[in-house]
Amino acid sequence: MAGNTFGTLFKLTTFGESHGPAIGGIIDGCPAGLEIDFDAITAEMQRRKPGQSAIVTQRKETDSVQFLSGIFEGKTTGTPIGFTIQNTDQKSKDYSHIKDTYRPSHADFTFDKKYGHRDYRGGGRSSARETACRVVAGAIAKQLLNHIKITAYVSSVGELSLDKPYTDLDFSEIEKNPVRTADKEMAVTMENHIKAIKKQGDTIGGTISCVIQQVPIGLGEPVFDKLHAQLGKAMLSINAVKGFEYGSGFQGTKLRGSEHNDRFNPDGSTQTNHSGGVQGGISNGADIYFNVAFKPVATIIQSQETINSQGEIVEMMGKGRHDPCVVPRAVPIVEAMAALVIADFWLLNKLSKL
Amino acid sequence: MAGNTFGTLFKLTTFGESHGPAIGGIIDGCPAGLEIDFDAITAEMQRRKPGQSAIVTQRKETDSVQFLSGIFEGKTTGTPIGFTIQNTDQKSKDYSHIKDTYRPSHADFTFDKKYGHRDYRGGGRSSARETACRVVAGAIAKQLLNHIKITAYVSSVGELSLDKPYTDLDFSEIEKNPVRTADKEMAVTMENHIKAIKKQGDTIGGTISCVIQQVPIGLGEPVFDKLHAQLGKAMLSINAVKGFEYGSGFQGTKLRGSEHNDRFNPDGSTQTNHSGGVQGGISNGADIYFNVAFKPVATIIQSQETINSQGEIVEMMGKGRHDPCVVPRAVPIVEAMAALVIADFWLLNKLSKL
Amino acid sequence: MAGNTFGTLFKLTTFGESHGPAIGGIIDGCPAGLEIDFDAITAEMQRRKPGQSAIVTQRKETDSVQFLSGIFEGKTTGTPIGFTIQNTDQKSKDYSHIKDTYRPSHADFTFDKKYGHRDYRGGGRSSARETACRVVAGAIAKQLLNHIKITAYVSSVGELSLDKPYTDLDFSEIEKNPVRTADKEMAVTMENHIKAIKKQGDTIGGTISCVIQQVPIGLGEPVFDKLHAQLGKAMLSINAVKGFEYGSGFQGTKLRGSEHNDRFNPDGSTQTNHSGGVQGGISNGADIYFNVAFKPVATIIQSQETINSQGEIVEMMGKGRHDPCVVPRAVPIVEAMAALVIADFWLLNKLSKL
Amino acid sequence: MAGNTFGTLFKLTTFGESHGPAIGGIIDGCPAGLEIDFDAITAEMQRRKPGQSAIVTQRKETDSVQFLSGIFEGKTTGTPIGFTIQNTDQKSKDYSHIKDTYRPSHADFTFDKKYGHRDYRGGGRSSARETACRVVAGAIAKQLLNHIKITAYVSSVGELSLDKPYTDLDFSEIEKNPVRTADKEMAVTMENHIKAIKKQGDTIGGTISCVIQQVPIGLGEPVFDKLHAQLGKAMLSINAVKGFEYGSGFQGTKLRGSEHNDRFNPDGSTQTNHSGGVQGGISNGADIYFNVAFKPVATIIQSQETINSQGEIVEMMGKGRHDPCVVPRAVPIVEAMAALVIADFWLLNKLSKL
Repeated sequence: MAGNTFGTLFKLTTFGESHGPAIGGIIDGCPAGLEIDFDAITAEMQRRKPGQSAIVTQRKETDSVQFLSGIFEGKTTGTPIGFTIQNTDQKSKDYSHIKDTYRPSHADFTFDKKYGHRDYRGGGRSSARETACRVVAGAIAKQLLNHIKITAYVSSVGELSLDKPYTDLDFSEIEKNPVRTADKEMAVTMENHIKAIKKQGDTIGGTISCVIQQVPIGLGEPVFDKLHAQLGKAMLSINAVKGFEYGSGFQGTKLRGSEHNDRFNPDGSTQTNHSGGVQGGISNGADIYFNVAFKPVATIIQSQETINSQGEIVEMMGKGRHDPCVVPRAVPIVEAMAALVIADFWLLNKLSKL
Repeated sequence: MAGNTFGTLFKLTTFGESHGPAIGGIIDGCPAGLEIDFDAITAEMQRRKPGQSAIVTQRKETDSVQFLSGIFEGKTTGTPIGFTIQNTDQKSKDYSHIKDTYRPSHADFTFDKKYGHRDYRGGGRSSARETACRVVAGAIAKQLLNHIKITAYVSSVGELSLDKPYTDLDFSEIEKNPVRTADKEMAVTMENHIKAIKKQGDTIGGTISCVIQQVPIGLGEPVFDKLHAQLGKAMLSINAVKGFEYGSGFQGTKLRGSEHNDRFNPDGSTQTNHSGGVQGGISNGADIYFNVAFKPVATIIQSQETINSQGEIVEMMGKGRHDPCVVPRAVPIVEAMAALVIADFWLLNKLSKL
Repeated sequence: MAGNTFGTLFKLTTFGESHGPAIGGIIDGCPAGLEIDFDAITAEMQRRKPGQSAIVTQRKETDSVQFLSGIFEGKTTGTPIGFTIQNTDQKSKDYSHIKDTYRPSHADFTFDKKYGHRDYRGGGRSSARETACRVVAGAIAKQLLNHIKITAYVSSVGELSLDKPYTDLDFSEIEKNPVRTADKEMAVTMENHIKAIKKQGDTIGGTISCVIQQVPIGLGEPVFDKLHAQLGKAMLSINAVKGFEYGSGFQGTKLRGSEHNDRFNPDGSTQTNHSGGVQGGISNGADIYFNVAFKPVATIIQSQETINSQGEIVEMMGKGRHDPCVVPRAVPIVEAMAALVIADFWLLNKLSKL
Repeated sequence: MAGNTFGTLFKLTTFGESHGPAIGGIIDGCPAGLEIDFDAITAEMQRRKPGQSAIVTQRKETDSVQFLSGIFEGKTTGTPIGFTIQNTDQKSKDYSHIKDTYRPSHADFTFDKKYGHRDYRGGGRSSARETACRVVAGAIAKQLLNHIKITAYVSSVGELSLDKPYTDLDFSEIEKNPVRTADKEMAVTMENHIKAIKKQGDTIGGTISCVIQQVPIGLGEPVFDKLHAQLGKAMLSINAVKGFEYGSGFQGTKLRGSEHNDRFNPDGSTQTNHSGGVQGGISNGADIYFNVAFKPVATIIQSQETINSQGEIVEMMGKGRHDPCVVPRAVPIVEAMAALVIADFWLLNKLSKL
């Protein structure tokens, strides 16, 4: 309850269940005068869309967004930007078997206990369909930040991992393969792995890495709203995310201070970047980079024992058209959430000093 | 800058620099009628205090808190709880050498660029001294949540790691050793390691794990204010933190859905707990557990090259009395921030349904 | 920018311009399990609707609301309630004459200067059409507060004023006359007055009074979010409002303390109610009553000199179908905003003490 | 209770009871680099201080503020400004007679019912002593807004009223008389009236008017956070306030649109200013002016019947040193709250357009 708004100045509030008439949102706080590139928004939506390749869910969602306010003659007016996305492929009958059943490692049980009454169809509010709204808002935030470059890519699928720093990768590969990884050969290996797992009716986890480049110095609001703290929250709010690390991350805990410290160059840049572009919660102008861990999708096309709301053990069989691995479609969502965080701090930072 | 408040209903706002007259805070939203155990607050402050053992900084801070409002005749009144902690051991001269120098991997550079004018003494606002205020507020939150048990411990120091699940550890060991790890033998090994590193004038990173037990079902406010997202933000807002993972975390990305899913027992509990006590952003009643990565302290007692505000290369030598490893003293801070998150969601959840 | 959300826990965010495709909003924080009476919502919308009588604007807006989320099988689910209201009667050509003209005492000039780019059609975001969304949310808040009675009525039109305390009025008259005043004879006088003014192409101001009965003791969050302070803000945020007073109000400034103090009865109620049901910012269980001042509508069907965006003097003639007096249609808006305030404080107050 | 913060970007959070060790607050969001004039702050505190003349309470409060953070070498650093004001003249015994008694038209009853446990000494949190913190923050906000002029004055005491528009008054008189009215002769009349009422052990209400000049165009954030709505909330949050009106106010309801509309001059200024400097919730560059109604102080030095917490009728006699009329000392509080509102919107408005 009441946790459906993200941001302080550039604020996104979303609504909608996967099988209601529509999902949507309101972006409040986008400055007036921003020329909107609608094609760019559509392109981002396409990246998140189901059915785009053989390794993602085959649900058919049109995912076309209708803007209802806040944009006039192609430019933002400073008033709230309301938008909706119709739910066209609802197929509610697909979900009747779970009306009274709590699927393992889904949110059915917790939503039922917390609220007492829930829309059980397709996950309802807990469905990742909600993230389409984040992509819309993120696409606008990206346009506001047109001088900043945000690039996410799949860095691991199960045990298969890109074991290179991002600086050794070719980002131009990312959108050329359905896995959205930044290495041509690994892309094929990962794709085959996901297909094999799908054939077994199983799913697999993975990792997305993200790099934000050309960030101005000064973004982030210590002590609680540190740049990386808000990025972490943003990523952890995405469905299926289990972890977040930035800069040297968990590996950095093994280093000594003398190894980990980033020496300055005379121009204020640093010779290494263990900091991940953030010092004391504030961007230092270096690249921000971070990793996000995604668990394997909980819906498997296998028979599982579970319970119903009466506490009876029941057998259930996953149905529907689900993602065997969530990370390829989550890449644009990671970018969108990163854009929302950066846009908010970019606005706030304009007020840091006289 | 307006990032100094944490929480929605149980709100902490802090102020203070390491070398000003005092630090302090305001807790707004603590319900009336809570009997305050002042000894328990003092005990938490003692755990965070410098000088408590040979492996932490030898600064002498009294860290005694003075409550100025909101508590009357030993009980909260529902009005804001104002408190201050005097800065008694300021030794400002210790820091004159950094007035114009940016220490590597400290926040000197970013604060200077963001604000144009900063209190350079001892890190100023970016000093971890500020976390003393969090411990005060966390100690009160713990009392509000007296039915919930929050336990943090050091799970790794550099390469030395407790390679056991928390369920195999003896939590009663934690406060018996200066490292605050949950294993008697490892405690000695870690302590010796930290001492050796200290002797070299160097520092080392580490990991803290935290377990929250007896959590009611229903805490967390999707879609953005998911329980684990807010926990992640809370932890990432602590000085020196580089990563956060909960439940199966980064390791969980390697599993398949059929392995990772937590099967239900008829009573709604689960047979495994890869979920880490949270499903869809809402607590499910199982133990919440998570790991927090801390980088090595940036202040080393070695000579380092760095730059000053004119962009000139200067030689600097770390001075002062610093922690060779931050994790032993960060254990109560992790618990405090966890308590703030849980208290806030516990209050919010009372309003989830009619 | 960013001022389109009202409330702390029971939160309404609205969007929409008068001549875009739709207006709408998101209600976040309504507890789950509330059975929604859709007819009651429609009834409130009818009260605000244009064209309902001869003394209000004859625009034809259907004002039918479509709920998109947050309500399932007739009950709230605790997730955000998204809704839209289509703009069916746009007639954009009516407004082409003001594209480049600043109408006197309208918001054209200030919106243009603040945002640099605005939807000039029919007032755009500054149109009172936006209040339809408030009525939707208020209607749901009223259902949440079904034990509390909120009654607003027109207490003056121009110089014509009901000079009686609300306790001497017959509230059952209010909805029986198009003016929505609480006196049968005065209703006729006021109606004729409005008609005469309309015939002259002019407009007139007025006052709405509101009474909230059966309010539990304890609502309001001092020191800043006092019950009457938030009520005042709510009312002042309605288009055309110029003043707010509660209890003894401006007249009370002329009294002495010995006259103004409300003596207690043994049961905690008071013998008089100069306080207006609020002491120290907290409801005391007595009736809350307040007055809201509305200026005359700025659009008059007369020729006026004004300026265009080039600073040239131009002649303009009000067109379109406007209200000669805004108060009859503002009655449900006042009630709606009052309901939003009370609902929010009612939820907050559940957390005041252990 | 979580209503102790005011503002969105320039945020004040206060704490403290009248008879605890201290009151204080945190200002978060003041930009870095503002040179602080401490004498100007002291001067504002002197204006609010008890004991400054024969017509105000003779309590002796030193009201000297200690800044604990956020200001370094005389300039703000962008970090939170923490401050305390000691309660030196507590005389707690003065209040023992009300421990168990609810004073008429005070907040004793409502605080007791809402929180169950309260600091009964001298009003505790509901005491106007808290407003000293607002004056501190307001004095800093004024310095941030050094190009804007905020002037408040007493416009009525009981039936005695300055019946002139502010443009006909001599503001240089205000601080020359203890009533703080803007007319030399009326000042004497009002002073004598207050003295006569004081002699009777009674109190009297009054009105404060405030004018804000040289306001940039564009301040205010529709639709809910309209400039006048937030000003209204700010004023209504001050102790004893019963009403707020701006521009033409309640009198404006009697006018016709043709009389009330403010005609533009070619430069965008207006020939009249019924609008009170605000159109559509946004400042238009004209003077902002408004009136604030204060009830008579509830503490009278006469015998009154009231009840105790057992619901028994008891006789009580006002003791202590109270204000016979609150408005002279409330003048700087009105200005302070106005400054907080303007500072917040001034910062927000920097982000309205690209």
